[in-house]
Amino acid sequence: MKEDTTFQLLLSSINEKVRLTETEMQVCKSFFTPKKLLKKQLLLQHQEVCHFIAFVVQGILRSYTVDAKGNEHVVQFALEGWWISDNYSFLTGEPSTYNIDALEDAELLLLSRPAMDELLLKVPAMERYFRILMQNSLVALQRRLVGSLSYTAEEKYTNLIRTYPDIAQRVPQHQIASYLGIKPETLSRIRKQLTSR
Amino acid sequence: MKEDTTFQLLLSSINEKVRLTETEMQVCKSFFTPKKLLKKQLLLQHQEVCHFIAFVVQGILRSYTVDAKGNEHVVQFALEGWWISDNYSFLTGEPSTYNIDALEDAELLLLSRPAMDELLLKVPAMERYFRILMQNSLVALQRRLVGSLSYTAEEKYTNLIRTYPDIAQRVPQHQIASYLGIKPETLSRIRKQLTSR
Repeated sequence: MKEDTTFQLLLSSINEKVRLTETEMQVCKSFFTPKKLLKKQLLLQHQEVCHFIAFVVQGILRSYTVDAKGNEHVVQFALEGWWISDNYSFLTGEPSTYNIDALEDAELLLLSRPAMDELLLKVPAMERYFRILMQNSLVALQRRLVGSLSYTAEEKYTNLIRTYPDIAQRVPQHQIASYLGIKPETLSRIRKQLTSR
Repeated sequence: MKEDTTFQLLLSSINEKVRLTETEMQVCKSFFTPKKLLKKQLLLQHQEVCHFIAFVVQGILRSYTVDAKGNEHVVQFALEGWWISDNYSFLTGEPSTYNIDALEDAELLLLSRPAMDELLLKVPAMERYFRILMQNSLVALQRRLVGSLSYTAEEKYTNLIRTYPDIAQRVPQHQIASYLGIKPETLSRIRKQLTSR
């Protein structure tokens, strides 16, 4: 992949939130490592330490847990322009409770923990970028949690496709059901009802 | 209340994460507004814009939503040393979907949006403090969400009291049940089972 295309989405994501000089952008780029994943390939495996946060340039990733009965629970999807990681493991150095894999062939930019620490020292404006990023993720997650406590299955689904229309077309239905914490049969019934209205 | 005592907890929370000079600490303090709340008094009402983030010096606050059927759903508790707000409303200026009230008489330090913006300009090290704060909240919320998808009611409760032993003693049981998204009867049964073991 051409370097310019690879970094374009990342730099525009950063520039939406903070103003970097041309030099700072170059410094920034130097801390990221490009990585490609094939569909179904794992980026992080349960019980490994998550040494990076990953920016999605192309494709779709998901993080998920597997419970004692062997059932998968999707924690997060990440499409182009999104970040994905196990923040807990990344920050504490403890083994991860998540798996992260690709639902489509994917191109990523990885930022390791030492690279992030050094980047924040060299380009302090990036503190602001990550603060805003964390803040926005927090807001989204809080709304999702409130949804999981107080919305019906149908409301959860319609909220999801309103916010991320892409997901409904690109992610298999049973993955979406898992993300919403509902049974695939329930999702299938809801979709039929919505189409017949 | 004496000024020193009021700010002590806030400054120690900040100093755990970033190093501020004595001057920066004084600047910091100047942006916060102390506020007292009586038990049951509202700090934020549904459909108002949330103009602040609040640091709890003393007491317990909770944020909650009320669904179409009039049922309350607790989103968050905040004890001494914690922050509480509706981040979404605070960041976007949109009306809040939350209420925030005091479960005990409380002393707070409020930081308004303009005050926060100016504080971040005058003391850039605070970008780092808030980045770490948001990051930690994100991690906690993500773990809670994973819990809500894959844990049993008993696991949810024992995780909560392991992490925050104070909450079980200070917050009424029906509030805890609401936070966990389980029925008060279920929580009561779980508590009996745990005591009889």
